Amino acid sequence: MTDEQYMKLALALAESARGQTSPNPLVGAVVVKDGQIVGMGAHLKAGEPHAEVHAIRMAGEKAKGATAYVTLEPCSHYGKTPPCADLLIEAGVARVVIATEDPFPKVSGRGIRKLQQAGIEVEVGICKQEALDLNRIFFHFVRTKRPYVTIKSATTLDGKTATVQGNSKWITSEQAREDVHRYRHEHDAILVGVGTVLADNPSLTTRLAAGGLNPVRVILDRRLRTPLDRNVITDGKAPTWIFTEERADKAKKKALEEKGVQVFSLPNVSVEAVLETLREKNILSVFVEGGATVNGSFVKAGTVDQVITYLAPKVFGGAAAPTAIGGDGVIAVADALPFEVQEVIQIGPDVKIVARAKEDGNDVYGNY
Amino acid sequence: MTDEQYMKLALALAESARGQTSPNPLVGAVVVKDGQIVGMGAHLKAGEPHAEVHAIRMAGEKAKGATAYVTLEPCSHYGKTPPCADLLIEAGVARVVIATEDPFPKVSGRGIRKLQQAGIEVEVGICKQEALDLNRIFFHFVRTKRPYVTIKSATTLDGKTATVQGNSKWITSEQAREDVHRYRHEHDAILVGVGTVLADNPSLTTRLAAGGLNPVRVILDRRLRTPLDRNVITDGKAPTWIFTEERADKAKKKALEEKGVQVFSLPNVSVEAVLETLREKNILSVFVEGGATVNGSFVKAGTVDQVITYLAPKVFGGAAAPTAIGGDGVIAVADALPFEVQEVIQIGPDVKIVARAKEDGNDVYGNY
Repeated sequence: MTDEQYMKLALALAESARGQTSPNPLVGAVVVKDGQIVGMGAHLKAGEPHAEVHAIRMAGEKAKGATAYVTLEPCSHYGKTPPCADLLIEAGVARVVIATEDPFPKVSGRGIRKLQQAGIEVEVGICKQEALDLNRIFFHFVRTKRPYVTIKSATTLDGKTATVQGNSKWITSEQAREDVHRYRHEHDAILVGVGTVLADNPSLTTRLAAGGLNPVRVILDRRLRTPLDRNVITDGKAPTWIFTEERADKAKKKALEEKGVQVFSLPNVSVEAVLETLREKNILSVFVEGGATVNGSFVKAGTVDQVITYLAPKVFGGAAAPTAIGGDGVIAVADALPFEVQEVIQIGPDVKIVARAKEDGNDVYGNY
Repeated sequence: MTDEQYMKLALALAESARGQTSPNPLVGAVVVKDGQIVGMGAHLKAGEPHAEVHAIRMAGEKAKGATAYVTLEPCSHYGKTPPCADLLIEAGVARVVIATEDPFPKVSGRGIRKLQQAGIEVEVGICKQEALDLNRIFFHFVRTKRPYVTIKSATTLDGKTATVQGNSKWITSEQAREDVHRYRHEHDAILVGVGTVLADNPSLTTRLAAGGLNPVRVILDRRLRTPLDRNVITDGKAPTWIFTEERADKAKKKALEEKGVQVFSLPNVSVEAVLETLREKNILSVFVEGGATVNGSFVKAGTVDQVITYLAPKVFGGAAAPTAIGGDGVIAVADALPFEVQEVIQIGPDVKIVARAKEDGNDVYGNY
């Protein structure tokens, strides 16, 4: 096996924990001695051991003189766990292969220098692109200091999210809806407007055959219209955060808080203010499943990093039927938010298109 | 080479003439003697020789004792050309391999019987599915007695055909627009509403690097509002047919006719009446590039056989921005016109989805 093959294994180990590690990045590690794998590990959860710790523990005495493959530069500082660079040095590894440097400008390169100063051979850049892609959301958060925003929509071929009379259950197939739940598992937060809560009484939880993590449920509700008997208030399955205006009904706020809801009162429920609060709460990624108005406000704010569109092979027609993204919209064609198609696949009878904001890739991959 | 490989060659020959043969089907023929191809041909244009004639001519004396591969059952009746079954018999071929029977119930099987009665070995069904797909539009026309209707749309990811202020140039890429011109070449007619003529003054011609056939330009114009100075009236590049109501302005009608326009006056410009007239004029296929209202009327009439959607990776947003299919629309989700995705590809930066009416396949392939 080659360095690249071992690194791909480390990347796969890291990927397997997607959705579990936030606010930490996904990291995988493999330890190889004399052509045999002697240790493997992935970071599974924030606060728990780093990937290197698992892999070195598994390797035991065999780590001496071995090569360690890690998908991200080992940390060099004391956090919740001791520095992994020190661990690799103490274990006596001879060589460390790193896919990419740490993106934090302040610490980038420090772990590498520490290893080199201890006489360890260090190689950087094997499978770098894959390692950057792996932690795209994490890197985005570090770089931009705001959560990564994905708008999900499910429409007919003619772009409708409901018929002219508002009927929408179900446009897409069961397979497509299951795919959506996978995204819920992978996101820190799911966001809707109060209109969706009023109309559909959704749970906004992750319902996959094997279970899954529930994202924090974020509801934009300027006038605190969320009824106390809604699933998101009563089911206790995940935290529910409501963003409202300072002038909203105080008694209603208290009643919601007594039900365990966290209510954030802002001068104005703008997309920018909401994202800033979510950033402070260490929410790295937001899955927007809002109605047309909420989606439109994210487009207007220019804070859409990814659009995931499920298209069902149906046609509703109807000049008055709603579409996925409403609000004011842009005026000129050139003002459209520009995306790049990343993935187009068929899911059951439906088509799924993943498109990402055009500038994203360059920024992430340029300066680290 | 196998029977199937020779038949695939015959299918490719036939396919190469797509757009040229209407109202006739696409047909290809290959003649093989002692493992060598001695003749090849395709039907190129209505009124000109059938595929078998070209292939047998090319084979000359070598046709004696040869095998002929034809994508469609050879004709047995005198039309504009003598029957091909007779030609094959006279040429002395020993074996005829046919992909599929003729779909006309009255003549289906007659050519085959004629060949068999002359002592020729006949095999039917090699690459049958491909042969049915090849002439999907022709078979549809024979079966349903109405033109095959394709609605084309070009939208943003959020289903918009223009911004809230009506700007729409250009949503999709040059590559996608070139693909549209290929479809124009392949269709007998292109159809828009007068609104499109008034707003965009389009030519509705086929503009491909290698040239191409222009479809008949059909304009739905109840009140004869088409100005006499529009490209479709003045450029003389293709026939222009206007459908209007009987009560429309007689002087305007006369003025249009003097410009060479054919004006059809109907009691009511319904989709059904327009398609019936087009059928009478031997229009097998209609490419609808209408605005939302015209597209919506085809959806309402339930006469949409195919939807071709180009999606640009852009987002306009805007609750008031227009979508591809307007009109009244359906009420219940279950009332949506059901399609099946046939093809999903990326064209330059855009995504193209081809979806076909669900019942179509069954009907075409069931009873012939």
